[in-house]
Amino acid sequence: MGLAAGYDAWIISVGNELLIGSVVNSNMAWLGRRLTYLGFRVRGGLVVPDVVEDIAWAFRTAAERGARVVVSTGGLGPTFDDKTAEGLARAMGVPLRLNREALEMIREKYGEKGLPLTEHRVKMAMLPEGSTPIPNPVGTAPGVQARLLNSLVFLLPGVPSEMKAMFEGYVEPLLRKVGPKLYFVERRLTSRGLPESEAAPLIDEVLRRHPKVYVKSHPRGAELGVPILVLHITASGPSEEEARREVESAVKELARMLASKGAAVSVNP
Amino acid sequence: MGLAAGYDAWIISVGNELLIGSVVNSNMAWLGRRLTYLGFRVRGGLVVPDVVEDIAWAFRTAAERGARVVVSTGGLGPTFDDKTAEGLARAMGVPLRLNREALEMIREKYGEKGLPLTEHRVKMAMLPEGSTPIPNPVGTAPGVQARLLNSLVFLLPGVPSEMKAMFEGYVEPLLRKVGPKLYFVERRLTSRGLPESEAAPLIDEVLRRHPKVYVKSHPRGAELGVPILVLHITASGPSEEEARREVESAVKELARMLASKGAAVSVNP
Repeated sequence: MGLAAGYDAWIISVGNELLIGSVVNSNMAWLGRRLTYLGFRVRGGLVVPDVVEDIAWAFRTAAERGARVVVSTGGLGPTFDDKTAEGLARAMGVPLRLNREALEMIREKYGEKGLPLTEHRVKMAMLPEGSTPIPNPVGTAPGVQARLLNSLVFLLPGVPSEMKAMFEGYVEPLLRKVGPKLYFVERRLTSRGLPESEAAPLIDEVLRRHPKVYVKSHPRGAELGVPILVLHITASGPSEEEARREVESAVKELARMLASKGAAVSVNP
Repeated sequence: MGLAAGYDAWIISVGNELLIGSVVNSNMAWLGRRLTYLGFRVRGGLVVPDVVEDIAWAFRTAAERGARVVVSTGGLGPTFDDKTAEGLARAMGVPLRLNREALEMIREKYGEKGLPLTEHRVKMAMLPEGSTPIPNPVGTAPGVQARLLNSLVFLLPGVPSEMKAMFEGYVEPLLRKVGPKLYFVERRLTSRGLPESEAAPLIDEVLRRHPKVYVKSHPRGAELGVPILVLHITASGPSEEEARREVESAVKELARMLASKGAAVSVNP
């Protein structure tokens, strides 16, 4: 995908509901997009059940395969099957400890409503030793920031509104400091009337001439009926201007080549 | 998740578009649901980019972690970035070979439209040595059936209509023969007015009494506003009747316990 090495990101999604298919994993797509725009190369996504060993395996795998950043969603709430902190602790080889700061966050949230700290609520303050709680401005379960090998690890809740608020309010500002100084630019181009198999050699040629550009083709119509291809053209560069120049040049060339083969081409912003 | 061992399934999703978040992975949810209903325990989901080594790693990982069945989607088309067959071949330690049967399928599809076999179209007939093509009734790229360690591996296209038609027409009938003779039953229960942290100990108790039942709670309202919990209650058993009996008993007990704590409970079919 042509980005600087050393800035791989991995996304871990925890939850049986994702594996039995009762929930579609929109969190992974949302995080993938945000991490890509921050200049990271999202190298892998792991979906694991609510099982401590499987969660630990996922964190170890991402860290051992060279992740600079690992973001997980799910498994941080008060119920018996919220096991992400325990899984991370096992991957780190440390015990879970009651984190005072996290407990204070939880106590405040429930205290405002006159609700006491029960065993299940206190559980949400049990973090891997040496980790830091992340404030949850929307819900009650704090997130967790930790380090595993060379990876910066962030545990976020699975509820999308909480996950997004915590990513934007805490994770993203931090990643802008430690992440690559890269900018990501994209365009879309729609081609009508040319089968994907005929567009393929044209795309190959454009890619050979633009090594920093990535083109992904998405067939939308029937390959043998009226073929519609949506081409997603992306580039990352050290400046937005440079990335944009690369993308624009590739888009122009692609549009010209596709049109010369009889396709009706439109370029979307 | 309480199912018979030896029937783990893994799902592999190939495609940069899933990692950069330009597409939400609905294929994984669809396959997860179908595999679960067939009695498999979906143990893991791996999302990898269009990179041969990463794809090979994913297949090796699933096989080494004990998958009985591995289903992948994506990366089977005619373009340069369709690398799933090559990734599987590398994981199997075999070369890609032109498969006569696959070539015939492709020749027929394009021939009907008077289109010749180009290099990019022939590429779709290059399968890992020793594997079998799967007919594609909707599109042009054949699927692939292969064996890796103890895993039965199926490569399906990423286009949902093609993937679903090939799963239903080919993979599912085959899995009904080799899969566990297990039935999967589910119910949903909605609880209003009780925070998840207060429902948690009740769920724990029901699970202790029903070891074959799985309860997953999904908070829908605000934990501190008007909390709404959707409880998804599932069980698998050697007969549908037995699975249903387990689920019904757990649902009844849960509804009673939640109501006794002041929740408004409704049971959905």
